[in-house]
Amino acid sequence: MTSTFDFNDRFSQLIAEMKLDGRYRTFAQLERIAGEFPQALWRHPDGSSRRVTVWCSNDYLGMGQHGDVTAAMHRAIDRSGAGTGGTRNISGTNLVHVQLETELADLHGKEAALIFTSGWVSNLAALGTLGRLLPGCAIFSDALNHNSMIEGIRRSGAERFIFRHNDVAHLDELLGAVDPARPKIVAFESVYSMDGDIAPIAAICEVAEKHGAITYLDEVHAVGLYGPRGGGIAERDGVTHRVTLIEGTLAKAFGVMGGYVAGSALMIDIIRSFADSFIFTTSLSPHLAAGALAAVRHLKNNGDLRLRQRRNVEKLKSMLLDAGMPVLDSPSHILPLMIGDSHRCRLTSELLLAEHGIYIQPINYPTVPRGRERLRITPSPFHADEHMTHLLNALLAVRSRIDWPLAKAA
Amino acid sequence: MTSTFDFNDRFSQLIAEMKLDGRYRTFAQLERIAGEFPQALWRHPDGSSRRVTVWCSNDYLGMGQHGDVTAAMHRAIDRSGAGTGGTRNISGTNLVHVQLETELADLHGKEAALIFTSGWVSNLAALGTLGRLLPGCAIFSDALNHNSMIEGIRRSGAERFIFRHNDVAHLDELLGAVDPARPKIVAFESVYSMDGDIAPIAAICEVAEKHGAITYLDEVHAVGLYGPRGGGIAERDGVTHRVTLIEGTLAKAFGVMGGYVAGSALMIDIIRSFADSFIFTTSLSPHLAAGALAAVRHLKNNGDLRLRQRRNVEKLKSMLLDAGMPVLDSPSHILPLMIGDSHRCRLTSELLLAEHGIYIQPINYPTVPRGRERLRITPSPFHADEHMTHLLNALLAVRSRIDWPLAKAA
Repeated sequence: MTSTFDFNDRFSQLIAEMKLDGRYRTFAQLERIAGEFPQALWRHPDGSSRRVTVWCSNDYLGMGQHGDVTAAMHRAIDRSGAGTGGTRNISGTNLVHVQLETELADLHGKEAALIFTSGWVSNLAALGTLGRLLPGCAIFSDALNHNSMIEGIRRSGAERFIFRHNDVAHLDELLGAVDPARPKIVAFESVYSMDGDIAPIAAICEVAEKHGAITYLDEVHAVGLYGPRGGGIAERDGVTHRVTLIEGTLAKAFGVMGGYVAGSALMIDIIRSFADSFIFTTSLSPHLAAGALAAVRHLKNNGDLRLRQRRNVEKLKSMLLDAGMPVLDSPSHILPLMIGDSHRCRLTSELLLAEHGIYIQPINYPTVPRGRERLRITPSPFHADEHMTHLLNALLAVRSRIDWPLAKAA
Repeated sequence: MTSTFDFNDRFSQLIAEMKLDGRYRTFAQLERIAGEFPQALWRHPDGSSRRVTVWCSNDYLGMGQHGDVTAAMHRAIDRSGAGTGGTRNISGTNLVHVQLETELADLHGKEAALIFTSGWVSNLAALGTLGRLLPGCAIFSDALNHNSMIEGIRRSGAERFIFRHNDVAHLDELLGAVDPARPKIVAFESVYSMDGDIAPIAAICEVAEKHGAITYLDEVHAVGLYGPRGGGIAERDGVTHRVTLIEGTLAKAFGVMGGYVAGSALMIDIIRSFADSFIFTTSLSPHLAAGALAAVRHLKNNGDLRLRQRRNVEKLKSMLLDAGMPVLDSPSHILPLMIGDSHRCRLTSELLLAEHGIYIQPINYPTVPRGRERLRITPSPFHADEHMTHLLNALLAVRSRIDWPLAKAA
């Protein structure tokens, strides 16, 4: 008898390779403490726990514990219960979904918006659907685009052209080499998550317009944080009207969960009507939409948290640079501390946690290229001066024990 | 100058085609009323609202309003806030995620489980990842599998073989025609959503085992509803141990939101470590996990709601059949009322809503084949006898005015 395939053998081998390579991930078990952000309880496998300071959260403004947000969620649970029990089409559209979509459209100066269960699905749905419905479509994608955009482009079946990161001349060259009659989409981000650098949105729009391409901008690391109303980098730069579609998340600066796309009524209707990942999925719980709505409204009308965050980012960056720490001088709120080796990056993180009560997850390949391993630090409005001093002292103590290959480059 | 592509023209045309075909969807705007399920407020576009009875929810047991569930959610929001602010790897794993995964693994008699932001993403992630990591993989897919499984299989890049719906002999034949040394996955559902029929799980496992294939079973319309602990049809049939991976949802009988996969520790670790749609997405909010945990525990230890639902399904089915209604005599809790024409199906639904305060969404192509359009009725434990009488009388009134092409076939 012919032997059949050994699944366990194959899978064990894959896990073993990951471990050898320093890529195997163990999830730190935390418990967030509402009202005491950025403090959390870190649970040991033995069940005991310890209070730590989180320095790597994407709840950038602490809106996940904001009174407006949690109160709106409590009210919505009391009113409508836990889930929706259906897709948007089959009994799953509640008033608050529509209200949130109207609010998000307004935030980005667009006619309409559509919410999804995550930002990841937003990108898959929007790019996957638009590219699929446009015959002969060509999608021009920034080299550092997020996995979810890449998956959306792949799903679309459109031909993909990758332009060098933030390189407008290269984009222009690639666009110019494609038949002008073909439908073209330029897909890029505003704030790039890992280096914290920012795209030249106006210049990209200019080149796209010149070639008749539409633009798709992922602002997940910018909405709520930039622009006078938290509309993102496009709002800050005054170019919102030139971007065709803006994608955002409800799970970072807005502190809740879910994602969305905003654009013309027609394009949103197309995504709503054709995107499988939207059509065939239970809609976002009403209370999540209610919480996100409260967060968007608060940050539209109130810039205090943005100002406090900006101050803390600048302050910590100066402290780290003054101490000779290998931190990238990024123009955004993301401070990458460059380590440059997966095992030493993980060890640095472990020592910070075990000896100093500081939690910063190591960022290793494949999230960043090999040799560019780092700790990604995200100061919030709620990190006080003593948190910063504590972090600096902890990093100095760890650096005296571990050689960081990239430290000299800084 | 060469003219560029006209996006609006193309997209307008696609929407116009949908409308002509009766496929364009307008979402009914509802507001669920916690504590009064299956009642909801139906909002007119003019802002006024009317109380209606929902007969098409997938919150099959009304757990979305259960006191255990909403209380657990309120507590978790007070303790941990709104969102997690990170992926599972980067500050987004909370204690309650791990507790829920442990509980779900136990529910299905498996070593481990992994939760996702939706059932749709669970299938994309699990099938997409397993198929991609197995060289030369062949996936055998039931002809009526859900869109999310089809998308997962497509994403995997594996060769796909479609077997006729629930046809074990055909599956055997297809499996036998493929090189025995190739890795093989059989992907199917237990309760099929639209016809409400049930797969012969034991027979499918037998054939799969004979050919050295692993099995992947989608139980989203069965978990919480079947088996002594709500472990699904596999539990009811006593064959859980023979199924390799079981996929389920937290958004239907468990009343909340999210999805999961349960299986061996090794396979779950593989999905956890390699699935992009899991790795690169903000984790489920802690309070959603807490609500789902409460729902799973309640339904594990308590069969009352299941019994009441079963009674109501049987009672309504008898009433409809006795009145000569074209309802499929399904073995599950799903009662499809066959109409057979998209426009008349929509009109039936509109009359029920406008004239009788009964909300049942029409199910048209592409969700079901053309000519098989229907109303999909899902009786819950909370539909009282008077709701049933009211529904029957409303259907009789509508049928006297609209010709349903499939009515004679019943």
